[in-house]
Amino acid sequence: MTTASYHKDVVYTQNALERLHQIDRERKHWERIAATLRWDQETYLPLRGVAERAEQLALVEGAVHRRAADPEAGRLLRELGSETGNPGGGGGLPPVERDFLKVLRRAYDRAALLPQEFVEAAARAEGLSLAAWVEARRNNDFAALMPHLQTMVDMARKKAAYWGFQGAEVYDALLDCYEPGFPAAELVRHFGILRERLSALLRRIGPRGGEAFLGRDFDLGLQARYSRELMDTLGFDHDRGRLDTSAHPFTTTLGSHDVRITTRYHRDNLVSGIFSTIHELGHAFYELRAALALGGSSLGEGASMGIHESQSRLWENVIGRSRAFWEGQFPRLQFFFPDQLATRSLGAFYRGINQVRPSAIRIEADEVSYSLHIILRFELEQGLFSGNLTVEELPAAWRAAMRDLLGVEPETDAQGVLQDVHWAMGAFGYFPSYALGNLYGLQFWKKLCADLPGIESAIAKGCFGPIHAWLGDQIHAWGRRLDPPDLLRRVTGETLSAYPFLEYLETKYTELYGL
Amino acid sequence: MTTASYHKDVVYTQNALERLHQIDRERKHWERIAATLRWDQETYLPLRGVAERAEQLALVEGAVHRRAADPEAGRLLRELGSETGNPGGGGGLPPVERDFLKVLRRAYDRAALLPQEFVEAAARAEGLSLAAWVEARRNNDFAALMPHLQTMVDMARKKAAYWGFQGAEVYDALLDCYEPGFPAAELVRHFGILRERLSALLRRIGPRGGEAFLGRDFDLGLQARYSRELMDTLGFDHDRGRLDTSAHPFTTTLGSHDVRITTRYHRDNLVSGIFSTIHELGHAFYELRAALALGGSSLGEGASMGIHESQSRLWENVIGRSRAFWEGQFPRLQFFFPDQLATRSLGAFYRGINQVRPSAIRIEADEVSYSLHIILRFELEQGLFSGNLTVEELPAAWRAAMRDLLGVEPETDAQGVLQDVHWAMGAFGYFPSYALGNLYGLQFWKKLCADLPGIESAIAKGCFGPIHAWLGDQIHAWGRRLDPPDLLRRVTGETLSAYPFLEYLETKYTELYGL
Repeated sequence: MTTASYHKDVVYTQNALERLHQIDRERKHWERIAATLRWDQETYLPLRGVAERAEQLALVEGAVHRRAADPEAGRLLRELGSETGNPGGGGGLPPVERDFLKVLRRAYDRAALLPQEFVEAAARAEGLSLAAWVEARRNNDFAALMPHLQTMVDMARKKAAYWGFQGAEVYDALLDCYEPGFPAAELVRHFGILRERLSALLRRIGPRGGEAFLGRDFDLGLQARYSRELMDTLGFDHDRGRLDTSAHPFTTTLGSHDVRITTRYHRDNLVSGIFSTIHELGHAFYELRAALALGGSSLGEGASMGIHESQSRLWENVIGRSRAFWEGQFPRLQFFFPDQLATRSLGAFYRGINQVRPSAIRIEADEVSYSLHIILRFELEQGLFSGNLTVEELPAAWRAAMRDLLGVEPETDAQGVLQDVHWAMGAFGYFPSYALGNLYGLQFWKKLCADLPGIESAIAKGCFGPIHAWLGDQIHAWGRRLDPPDLLRRVTGETLSAYPFLEYLETKYTELYGL
Repeated sequence: MTTASYHKDVVYTQNALERLHQIDRERKHWERIAATLRWDQETYLPLRGVAERAEQLALVEGAVHRRAADPEAGRLLRELGSETGNPGGGGGLPPVERDFLKVLRRAYDRAALLPQEFVEAAARAEGLSLAAWVEARRNNDFAALMPHLQTMVDMARKKAAYWGFQGAEVYDALLDCYEPGFPAAELVRHFGILRERLSALLRRIGPRGGEAFLGRDFDLGLQARYSRELMDTLGFDHDRGRLDTSAHPFTTTLGSHDVRITTRYHRDNLVSGIFSTIHELGHAFYELRAALALGGSSLGEGASMGIHESQSRLWENVIGRSRAFWEGQFPRLQFFFPDQLATRSLGAFYRGINQVRPSAIRIEADEVSYSLHIILRFELEQGLFSGNLTVEELPAAWRAAMRDLLGVEPETDAQGVLQDVHWAMGAFGYFPSYALGNLYGLQFWKKLCADLPGIESAIAKGCFGPIHAWLGDQIHAWGRRLDPPDLLRRVTGETLSAYPFLEYLETKYTELYGL
């Protein structure tokens, strides 16, 4: 090859890469426009605006898909593939660009198989299903949601079929959308260990009384002000995001410098709002730092839902429900709520926020029983997609599994099968990432504590900079460059394991309850 | 022509019309997606999210334009035109469909002349200019806005050039975007009458002291609650819209059943927030009723900015600042703010909300001086587009015109040329519609009072149903079917006139001040 033709290839590669980045950025802009419409739907949309919003979302999802499945991107990806032997192709590029091509190629291969009409119809159906779920939950009326849920199941199957999956492969394909690298069979193994040891721990703890003072009357406006202040304390930049309220707390990214979280406040439950805020903050820190490191490209996001959840659950539970954390923060909380808290001890508060008591609601669950809620959903999802379970049978199957796994029974479907939005939005295969987040999280945390001795006393002083720096450099700044198993190995040198999480819980609760 | 071919034509016409409606609905969905992004930018967008939002808006405006200038729509419009002699064409259609074709054809003829790249670049530039205006106003720094403003002027000229207008025609073309049927020369005539009689009335009123109790400390949360309650009282359906706060109050339509208004509250000014809310409500009532009558088509909106402004200013001023209105509402306002108002009389409050005192700020202006603020902007816009005035000269020209027209001088540019967002958004030719709104409004009101004798006592009883019914049937339900001059003639039998407005003011203030 002559120097001139090599030079020409390099220029071609640079141009092709720049064009791919352009298409990718535009796709992402569209995704964030959709995120804005959804954020608004969850926070502020008037009741009667829902139907038209579904039409709007269908158009925007159509535009997302048009970019995600852009034939020009397909052509450029093929030409830039290392398999072409192009000297300026994958092989000769900087590592970050090779990761970009890997991620983009995978997304393209999936998107290109979905017809445009299917994507738009799915978005419209999801919008209406979401609205139906809100109503169904409010009215405790599973039957009203049923046809929508059936549509969601059918559409998920159809999507997997477009990708070439059938039968037992369908659920694996759905799992892979949220958590690449962990098929159902592997989850079964980890979840089996979790189920056994968590159930044993629950039995050892047994029934315990709560700290009633956390259920007294807490002014909603004051709770909101406290949450906002806590965001400051934990290092959130209010110029790059905001906090609102919604029925179901969530985090969403509307731009590289615009990550929104929501929480909700209950008058008779101080704990719920605080820990929802901290949980969502964990997601927001991840998104904001990934975007800073990798900008508006496909790489500048969380690696997977499970890794995401590891961050939110680390902040919420491992940090937020630690004694050290409240050594620093309790006095200020007492200042906000003197009538309820001034005479209470840190110890009583610490016991209160770590009360273990299996209940029907996942997002109110304690750390010990939480993963059992996930296992329940995982098993029902497997049933739905293996054909062993129909949508109609879900409410009864839910109640039976609740009795079996947690020993409780929801009083209503609203507090049972209707409690979560995920299925109503067609997000089958999403739930397992919550439990995976617990596992990843404690594997990361073990390493963080080894790298940062004395971190507990920093937390007690309200000093969170070292944690931000460590999580930022080790995890967040990598964005989507590494798949979850690779990221885990890079950070900890380990493969996925349930034991650090189980040991953390067993140590914490043995001490707390003097078992 | 045989019956069969006639039948075929009818079917063809129906299909073509349905397809046009489809394209039109999709364009409107895109417009409302853009409106959602803009609403969010004005209410909740974090500071650093602005730059990406401009990119997002450029994409959405591109999608709007792609539909507005869809060649398929152009072809269908030509084929359905009455000039084709098609028996199922314009001539044979129901009146509402003929109006639809008229409105769509006019919009298409304009849109098709604008290149896609120009529309997207303009949207991007407007987003950045809007953000620059927020900063410039905050920092009282006109120089920082200047390059953006120059871009806005250049783009407005370029847009007019695409449409085939040059020189003196440019400003008329811009005016026509907001108010079809009133070229600058005609505005000069009406505004001349306004200027003379309003200045004379201002001189007769002379300098007067205010009612200081309206400037005491009013809790912002209570003001917000009062505004929300007032919306109920006036008949707003909270399932079809909502109230938020923003720096500059506005109304925007995010869906046929989703009209959002904003207001803002000042601790030391009770009046400002209340009347901003009522003003924007006037716009919202119009939009919601038009959408109910004519759905998501291009017809289901306000007829023009001026007609829109007639509705908002009717509610704000003619109804909201009337003595009858507060006979019904003052006791409840006193209940909200007993410390400041309990000992005040209705008469003192009525004088307070109608205090005439020329000031630098348009949106705080009293009814008498308000139109003079508009005349000032109209004259400066004429100067900008005739080439007699440069962007750089605007601040000085603004101050000189303020002295001349209103006898006041703004202390800073922030309170002068930077006070309004319109020019920074490229909306040249928009301001005159505010003054036209005053004129239309009083022409409508005169007819309403003739049709509904005793309306004043209904208002005093807090009964607004008859007003909603009259405005709804006579004006709102017509949407954009009629151009402003035709609508005015249909409702009142008159052509545009400044006299009903002037007579209303002269009567009201002669009585108020015992002149």
